[in-house]
Amino acid sequence: MLVHEMVQLGAKRSGIRELFEYGLKRKAEVGAENVFDFSIGNPSVPAPDAVQAEFRSQAAREDTVKVHGYTSATGAMSVREAVAKNLNARFDAKARPENLFFTCGAAPALMSTMKAMCVPGAEFIILAPYFPEYPTFIRAIGGKVVIVPANTTDFDLHIEDVEPYVTEHTQAIIINSPNNPSGVVYQKAALEALAELLRKKSAETGHPIYIIADEPYRELVYDGYEAPFIPNIYENTVVCYSWSKSLSLPGERIGYVYVPDQAADSTDLFNAVAGSARALGHICAPTTAQYVVERCCCVMPDIKAYDENRKTLYKGLTELGYTCVYPHGAFYMLLKAPFGTALEFSEKAKEYNLLIPPCEPFGCPGYLRLSTCVSHDMILKSLPAFKALLEENR
Amino acid sequence: MLVHEMVQLGAKRSGIRELFEYGLKRKAEVGAENVFDFSIGNPSVPAPDAVQAEFRSQAAREDTVKVHGYTSATGAMSVREAVAKNLNARFDAKARPENLFFTCGAAPALMSTMKAMCVPGAEFIILAPYFPEYPTFIRAIGGKVVIVPANTTDFDLHIEDVEPYVTEHTQAIIINSPNNPSGVVYQKAALEALAELLRKKSAETGHPIYIIADEPYRELVYDGYEAPFIPNIYENTVVCYSWSKSLSLPGERIGYVYVPDQAADSTDLFNAVAGSARALGHICAPTTAQYVVERCCCVMPDIKAYDENRKTLYKGLTELGYTCVYPHGAFYMLLKAPFGTALEFSEKAKEYNLLIPPCEPFGCPGYLRLSTCVSHDMILKSLPAFKALLEENR
Repeated sequence: MLVHEMVQLGAKRSGIRELFEYGLKRKAEVGAENVFDFSIGNPSVPAPDAVQAEFRSQAAREDTVKVHGYTSATGAMSVREAVAKNLNARFDAKARPENLFFTCGAAPALMSTMKAMCVPGAEFIILAPYFPEYPTFIRAIGGKVVIVPANTTDFDLHIEDVEPYVTEHTQAIIINSPNNPSGVVYQKAALEALAELLRKKSAETGHPIYIIADEPYRELVYDGYEAPFIPNIYENTVVCYSWSKSLSLPGERIGYVYVPDQAADSTDLFNAVAGSARALGHICAPTTAQYVVERCCCVMPDIKAYDENRKTLYKGLTELGYTCVYPHGAFYMLLKAPFGTALEFSEKAKEYNLLIPPCEPFGCPGYLRLSTCVSHDMILKSLPAFKALLEENR
Repeated sequence: MLVHEMVQLGAKRSGIRELFEYGLKRKAEVGAENVFDFSIGNPSVPAPDAVQAEFRSQAAREDTVKVHGYTSATGAMSVREAVAKNLNARFDAKARPENLFFTCGAAPALMSTMKAMCVPGAEFIILAPYFPEYPTFIRAIGGKVVIVPANTTDFDLHIEDVEPYVTEHTQAIIINSPNNPSGVVYQKAALEALAELLRKKSAETGHPIYIIADEPYRELVYDGYEAPFIPNIYENTVVCYSWSKSLSLPGERIGYVYVPDQAADSTDLFNAVAGSARALGHICAPTTAQYVVERCCCVMPDIKAYDENRKTLYKGLTELGYTCVYPHGAFYMLLKAPFGTALEFSEKAKEYNLLIPPCEPFGCPGYLRLSTCVSHDMILKSLPAFKALLEENR
């Protein structure tokens, strides 16, 4: 008399998690320095000094009843004010604190937003390659998952790929840029074309089609790239953000939903996000973390280490004869399986103590994801293993 | 094209919250010292010194990648070990770390547990007076709310009140003791009788009927009372706990679900709780808070202030001629409306700057809830207002 799907969902481990656990076991057997674990997207760069200092300040505050107390469900007003101000300074966003709803990270932010829109028959479009939890999230709130296959020419956003998948039931399309797992950063022209398409389709279907901008990697961009602020391009954009990656705080569970004034039915949508959050068990985002981001939302991450890792790994692998997709953002890189399926290649790689998850769960068969949020030293030491793997098996 | 129920759920404020907001406005008008706000259950006692010191220690740790990093969805193993050990030491619980699933506080703990059990037609029994969010939680996960009316003779657990409401569709009964809002602490004999009833009904219906023990007030008991550890009385008990009240950390969102080995289908149930949490947007409980409770789960709250408040308010009000239910636990006290409905009395009380929410939302008409997690000084200063309110309106 238990819910079978929930038992399954809880019992089933993701492939990435399996590989990570295998890595722990393997490290115990052969020594941590001999295992090259590219599986997990846990920031390897510590939280910036200013953020660490702010955690210490918060812990030292005398008004502990406030520091550890409930805030309103939306978040503390002073925190919302600071973040709105920061969005306005950086992106000319015209955000008011009342547009921001703080959440326990990006996952509940995304789910609250989609649940708010999930009328019967609602379809949510995701673009492969995608974060593997998207389908789980969409199904959990009762929506239909619509997948646009990966465009493996450049893994970029091509409007002609998307158009056939927009129907009268489309409620939103999730845009994740910089992208996990490809590291591709969608540029302004592609997003403008998408905006045009969605305006046209919204007019045809008679209801707004939203962009849900899932952008925890917004600040992790290289080579002078920038991730455009999508509400400035398309009015019906809801932003789901988290400081997990930018401030290296994934465990602290702090993020927000931003529903801009210009979005269709903005007030109702904001209320529906709040109601959905409540229906998902939300009380408030962790208070200490809220006050930390109040002070630190202006702090930019130090991306030097990720940048170097990316370059070293790309250069090393391509010189060995591998094919990789050069990433301009996030801290991942796609690797094309040089033989067999991605799963077969991943299994073979394990024999060389290389842990690389295949991208089938990301909707991108034939590719694997390398996390570059690892130590630079591990990357250097892994290259001979990559060399042997290719030479002995090709 | 938004979900109407979610818009409503997000737009609608609770009566308690309305009263609290009114109080803020009123304080600005007449001065904070002239408003007697008994509305909110936010701990007024600071987190214990040891807990505050542990937050400072965590903030000072050098391995910040770990302190702020993801833990596994279940919680960090060292944290689960410490809490299991503590449960065993205090209650001879025979808990293993693998029985504990850490959550962002009690709300998602309860919802994950109920969602795991929420097969089609599932009924969940709650006893009035009850925490007003229970019906919202149960409806949100798709269950049917079954309410046992309050027994106003003593607000205690009487098995003959419960029995008629147990059906073949009953999946669980929520037991909240010490109780919010009554402060009643159910004793061993009543719980044993409930266990007997549920064993009998489980045998009749052919499936286990669980107790969900929602016990954030477990440690807030007075007069030498103790809240029995319910898994020791009934095998099919799942405990939902939070440190919000006991360690005064409501904003930090830290709690757990405990699925004992002896509960029916224990492994499947644990997995279903994990799966349900995932389907509600759970990634992990806040990491710093996890590490704080690893060290501080043995810290007992200093309940002296709440105890004194309780006695002073009870004595003061009953001497004035009010009828109150003497609480042995939590930090609330029921007040019987001496004239009119509870809502009418609450409205009249506002004219005397007394903010007291009526208990209709708690399923207990005719009564109001006084929070005693307030300053002792405010209680003393409020008594003349209570006196005038009664004398001028009776």
